[in-house]
Amino acid sequence: MTANLPVFSGQNPVFIPGPTNIPDRLRYAMSIQTTDHRAPDFVELLGPLLGDLRKVFKTATGEVITFPASGTGGWEAAITNTLSPGDKVLVARYGMFSHRWIDMCQRHNLDVEVIECEWGCGAPADRFGERLAADTDHAIKAVLVTHNETATGVVSDVGAVRRAMDAAGHPAMLYVDCVSSLASMDFRMDEWGVDLAVTGSQKGFMLATGMAIVGVSRRAMEATRTATCPRCFFDFRDMGGANAKGGFPYTPPLQIMYGLRESLKMLLDEGLDEVFARHHRIAEGVREAIRAWGLSLCAKSPDLYSDTVSCVYVPEGFDSNLLTNHAFDTYGVSFGVGLGPMSGKAFRIGHLGSLTDVMALSGIATIEMAMKDLGYPIRLGSGVAAAQEYYRATAGATRKAAA
Amino acid sequence: MTANLPVFSGQNPVFIPGPTNIPDRLRYAMSIQTTDHRAPDFVELLGPLLGDLRKVFKTATGEVITFPASGTGGWEAAITNTLSPGDKVLVARYGMFSHRWIDMCQRHNLDVEVIECEWGCGAPADRFGERLAADTDHAIKAVLVTHNETATGVVSDVGAVRRAMDAAGHPAMLYVDCVSSLASMDFRMDEWGVDLAVTGSQKGFMLATGMAIVGVSRRAMEATRTATCPRCFFDFRDMGGANAKGGFPYTPPLQIMYGLRESLKMLLDEGLDEVFARHHRIAEGVREAIRAWGLSLCAKSPDLYSDTVSCVYVPEGFDSNLLTNHAFDTYGVSFGVGLGPMSGKAFRIGHLGSLTDVMALSGIATIEMAMKDLGYPIRLGSGVAAAQEYYRATAGATRKAAA
Amino acid sequence: MTANLPVFSGQNPVFIPGPTNIPDRLRYAMSIQTTDHRAPDFVELLGPLLGDLRKVFKTATGEVITFPASGTGGWEAAITNTLSPGDKVLVARYGMFSHRWIDMCQRHNLDVEVIECEWGCGAPADRFGERLAADTDHAIKAVLVTHNETATGVVSDVGAVRRAMDAAGHPAMLYVDCVSSLASMDFRMDEWGVDLAVTGSQKGFMLATGMAIVGVSRRAMEATRTATCPRCFFDFRDMGGANAKGGFPYTPPLQIMYGLRESLKMLLDEGLDEVFARHHRIAEGVREAIRAWGLSLCAKSPDLYSDTVSCVYVPEGFDSNLLTNHAFDTYGVSFGVGLGPMSGKAFRIGHLGSLTDVMALSGIATIEMAMKDLGYPIRLGSGVAAAQEYYRATAGATRKAAA
Amino acid sequence: MTANLPVFSGQNPVFIPGPTNIPDRLRYAMSIQTTDHRAPDFVELLGPLLGDLRKVFKTATGEVITFPASGTGGWEAAITNTLSPGDKVLVARYGMFSHRWIDMCQRHNLDVEVIECEWGCGAPADRFGERLAADTDHAIKAVLVTHNETATGVVSDVGAVRRAMDAAGHPAMLYVDCVSSLASMDFRMDEWGVDLAVTGSQKGFMLATGMAIVGVSRRAMEATRTATCPRCFFDFRDMGGANAKGGFPYTPPLQIMYGLRESLKMLLDEGLDEVFARHHRIAEGVREAIRAWGLSLCAKSPDLYSDTVSCVYVPEGFDSNLLTNHAFDTYGVSFGVGLGPMSGKAFRIGHLGSLTDVMALSGIATIEMAMKDLGYPIRLGSGVAAAQEYYRATAGATRKAAA
Repeated sequence: MTANLPVFSGQNPVFIPGPTNIPDRLRYAMSIQTTDHRAPDFVELLGPLLGDLRKVFKTATGEVITFPASGTGGWEAAITNTLSPGDKVLVARYGMFSHRWIDMCQRHNLDVEVIECEWGCGAPADRFGERLAADTDHAIKAVLVTHNETATGVVSDVGAVRRAMDAAGHPAMLYVDCVSSLASMDFRMDEWGVDLAVTGSQKGFMLATGMAIVGVSRRAMEATRTATCPRCFFDFRDMGGANAKGGFPYTPPLQIMYGLRESLKMLLDEGLDEVFARHHRIAEGVREAIRAWGLSLCAKSPDLYSDTVSCVYVPEGFDSNLLTNHAFDTYGVSFGVGLGPMSGKAFRIGHLGSLTDVMALSGIATIEMAMKDLGYPIRLGSGVAAAQEYYRATAGATRKAAA
Repeated sequence: MTANLPVFSGQNPVFIPGPTNIPDRLRYAMSIQTTDHRAPDFVELLGPLLGDLRKVFKTATGEVITFPASGTGGWEAAITNTLSPGDKVLVARYGMFSHRWIDMCQRHNLDVEVIECEWGCGAPADRFGERLAADTDHAIKAVLVTHNETATGVVSDVGAVRRAMDAAGHPAMLYVDCVSSLASMDFRMDEWGVDLAVTGSQKGFMLATGMAIVGVSRRAMEATRTATCPRCFFDFRDMGGANAKGGFPYTPPLQIMYGLRESLKMLLDEGLDEVFARHHRIAEGVREAIRAWGLSLCAKSPDLYSDTVSCVYVPEGFDSNLLTNHAFDTYGVSFGVGLGPMSGKAFRIGHLGSLTDVMALSGIATIEMAMKDLGYPIRLGSGVAAAQEYYRATAGATRKAAA
Repeated sequence: MTANLPVFSGQNPVFIPGPTNIPDRLRYAMSIQTTDHRAPDFVELLGPLLGDLRKVFKTATGEVITFPASGTGGWEAAITNTLSPGDKVLVARYGMFSHRWIDMCQRHNLDVEVIECEWGCGAPADRFGERLAADTDHAIKAVLVTHNETATGVVSDVGAVRRAMDAAGHPAMLYVDCVSSLASMDFRMDEWGVDLAVTGSQKGFMLATGMAIVGVSRRAMEATRTATCPRCFFDFRDMGGANAKGGFPYTPPLQIMYGLRESLKMLLDEGLDEVFARHHRIAEGVREAIRAWGLSLCAKSPDLYSDTVSCVYVPEGFDSNLLTNHAFDTYGVSFGVGLGPMSGKAFRIGHLGSLTDVMALSGIATIEMAMKDLGYPIRLGSGVAAAQEYYRATAGATRKAAA
Repeated sequence: MTANLPVFSGQNPVFIPGPTNIPDRLRYAMSIQTTDHRAPDFVELLGPLLGDLRKVFKTATGEVITFPASGTGGWEAAITNTLSPGDKVLVARYGMFSHRWIDMCQRHNLDVEVIECEWGCGAPADRFGERLAADTDHAIKAVLVTHNETATGVVSDVGAVRRAMDAAGHPAMLYVDCVSSLASMDFRMDEWGVDLAVTGSQKGFMLATGMAIVGVSRRAMEATRTATCPRCFFDFRDMGGANAKGGFPYTPPLQIMYGLRESLKMLLDEGLDEVFARHHRIAEGVREAIRAWGLSLCAKSPDLYSDTVSCVYVPEGFDSNLLTNHAFDTYGVSFGVGLGPMSGKAFRIGHLGSLTDVMALSGIATIEMAMKDLGYPIRLGSGVAAAQEYYRATAGATRKAAA
């Protein structure tokens, strides 16, 4: 913390694309004193939790498996439980998180075929379709898609990927990273035919980091029988089997489980559609500000704009890392840095989870000051005004929709 | 809470002039489990607490007495412990809080002589001086001053009142309401010859409401011997006597006491001068915004501008109560309403306690939206930009001062 | 804290007769971030709160008035709002808290007629009746009764006092201190014809200290019109009038109000009868332990035994203050000291509020160790075994009753 | 929760062998609002954390690696980072946790040679020595030891294992599960030549479950270069590399990291020797109670008695699962069940982490009631009295030692 912020730790919101700002209600829920995870009341916690998670994944037939880990652990669980060394998987690389998933697959000795895309693009449904159509002997076992690429602020059309797979008549399973989309943007596991859907506790669920959450289709669960990737901590069979008896194969992350119960209650009470609309509204206001500054998004086209994070190019000649550092040092506010090739070229504004229009305006105002401090060619207040205009215009609509 | 804010309770800052936004550090300090107030470690809590409070009052010779009550209870303690029915007191009325203190004096059967001032003025040191000079038989026992009139956003020159009293050679005691100034703006009990200084836990100390805190000069403590106003709960002698032995005459507000210990540590670690500079900077940014909107402050002149609250006149033809209601209903943000004759004519922006420039900007942006929504002749973003400019310009200076 | 307890602050329960151990649920409820007490949602908090309090007082026709103060402030509110200097009040002194109430009445210039009783006795309904019968010109305006004398562990029969008053045909009002009984032992404001009933937040409500709560009958409310005791902070008219409009005359203790809302929910969900049965069971277990030690209670007879606190005489030749100090220094557990004439002769075990049989056993075991350490003629484990026997025998019954 | 415990959730301590009762100080530390793990202040958190962990492991030359996972994840990290499929490892099975580690090794395709021991025994240093001496071609790459077998309440002599390995002149690495011993019982990574030491956040560190913590010797770190077990989430190289730059390869468990910082401060301020002495004292009191009941420990001899958990055989004809269920249902207190072959035959009393003698007595009293309820041939109060006697006798000594 910088010298002029001695007493304010935790008062300014963060604008990173997760972990999100945690509402007090969830902080208290996670502060529960230790109870016995082998006691009868643990069952009463676990069952409804998994049931409600299925509602959020929008799956009637799949199961949900959780682990005390981060979302990255969820990726590992998804692939090691359902694939065997040497299995071919098809993945498109269009950001840091798709890149990392590819790396993980390679380390687990999968045969990874990568479709390289420009960062800022989404999942290339057509190219997937072409490749799958050509794979007549069905060597490809899995197609991996990053629903929301956190590094570029791009949301992909998973339904289109499914349609391309179906059009190619290909039996590969569909794996989706929905870490930074689930519970913030629409996700339809059953409708899109997703076999493995991976997320974590610290994004749309607004909790501390510490739980990997994986939606598993029946077909994916079948695949665990033959998959030979070694696994133990992340074994679906151990976890699913123990869960079925109301238990855990090892110590569960109790505090996050209680937090998740409360988070699910908040989300389902509000209604998922309303949650998505709320995220869209906050995001649109941020995008209005970006437009007003004359800056451009990494995402190539409006249909790719993510409602949870915006990745913004800084003008030529400026270093985005200096900008995010300056915002933190001078105003005590965190924004996302540019990752990988974006380092220095773009910064990110996270706008997911528990965030109000009022909080969003403080972030917009802050980065605006930081840009001005560093000589960016923007007008103070311009982004704020554009966002204000949008939030004003939509405040009523949202209110009515929620009423 | 309004319909579009289902999950955000407590996330938007409040902009009321106290109780203030409470930093987590103090919320946790106040969440202490019950301990025994008759146990030996209570003494270790109480003594240093009272000692540190004296540093904040800037008194080397006075005592500090606390009660489980609000600041209003502190007023009652101050007058009933040191005055007798029929005693004449001299007070100026220039806002709601001076008005209420007058009312309280009258109910306690004091002979209250009121100097009526226009709201927006400060304590009239010259008129006090004239009146005291005329009071040759010294019938006036006390002069009552509201240091920071929370209703009008006016800070008075208490030192000038003391000088006027001294110039008149008058022996009356000086009572000061510093509820919304202490620990936020400079206050000098000894230097200004203040005999009774009254504050509460929920303003500059950033705590929950629940403790009245009174600085008592030696002379005031002497006066308790002869004062005949009936009192018991608020009796200085009981409380001072019990405190001297490390106890309380009845159940103490333990949680607030632990919170106060932490608050004092925060304030004294930061340094009082830095605390005041921080408040001034936040306040100046708010005032820049008000200027940019073309609105005027209730405070008559810059020397009267309060660094803890700004009272802003709305333009002719507008109703400030509709504005504050709209800001709350539509954006979930609380601002202070106009009190008494200001009702409908002015609103207040509280900017005291634990508030960053970033938080302040969110408040400015919000009230700006609310004004625009209601047709006020202002330009969106104008106030924000003015405040941003000021905060940018001063961010470095403050940082250096604190380094 | 002593040297061998460096990390355990707050882990051992307290066994003082209030403030009580605070359940996490209430600590979290009281940790709410600041909201605006002048905002519309404050009304939604206040109204139901007062309504639920009436259920706990068991009054259909009375009102409830609260103040940010301790229970002692509630006493002051009760008398100053309804009586005038010189008014005669009849009080029995049978413990420290009745003693203090008498002192308060005298300081407020009431004409206090005291019936002296031995400590350990309850309210002398018959002597009240005699005195009232003799007061043919109805000079006595009020009868003051301490329902549960916290200093002696004696609960009085308030209904009997009412019957004696009625039998005497006397119109005096009945004032009851139920600070350490309400929400723990049966209290019936309407049925017993109580006019003023005074309690606080930190006993049966299991909250932090900081709210005085007063039940006020219609007749008592009428009396505020003519009562001339000076008052302002504690004025029923100001508070009742503001409450009626959904507000407070000054800053309310918001955190405690939110805590109280949750506490009332807990109490009413459990059911008051079950709350009382639970307290009785815990208390009986403690009393079984005391019997097993061969020690005697201050309370003269079983009908006077309090279910919230037991006052225990130490054997001749022992100093109870050394015992409570030793228990605190050596084992980190607080018990109530003997008050006033009981100092050195008795100690107190508080067993009210949020306490389980398991917690009670830890207190019994601790004081047993402490007594043994100091050479008391008791057998280790004897009190525990007696309490265990009782708790075992009654565990099922309570469970069934609550089912 | 059972019907007679409606308001007390979280008030009774747990007596499971971890997760432990969490002190408020750590609950608050873990309740920190989200901050940015890519911001500069994260470095200030991480570095000292890892440094202090090394003090607790007692390693000057090793590194510490943490993961957002449970201790089981730490096991997986230890073996997959340093071993290759087909590598031979030598393990003794003497409880559920050594059993599970064996299972994990097998799933990761290691060649596991198991020395079967009776449950209740410790690590067989002599048999390890014999086997290693016979392994002249050094096929055995690793010896795996469970320092504290949580299932049986047995602590093993790791130093003796090291001496046996050295005596055999065998270069195998030494892997130690210290999940339920580190920060509670003495552990000496360097002195005992431990190469991999695995623990978690929820035992001696008194935190929520969610962090695996692994001490890694230089030699073990070297081994990561050649080890070919597939790994990614748990890869030491990624984590160590990122940590070295002040970062994390994926989202860190920030709340637990802040909790760990505070926990380390508590432990190091108290002093590790004092922490161990405190655990020993609490454990001895529990064992005195067990002796008084005439029951026997699973641990075969006093040198094997664990200071963090006692596993107690129930008498012939009784079912320990009924006992633990009854204690939970009737008294709301959790004890550890018998695991694996111990199911029904033994129950466990956890006595690690943040526990006072007073709390321990409440657990002893509770299980005593539960046993009596179910007809066990014990005398009520007997175990409590034995423990009281021990705690009394040692209260002073501990106090002096800590002074």
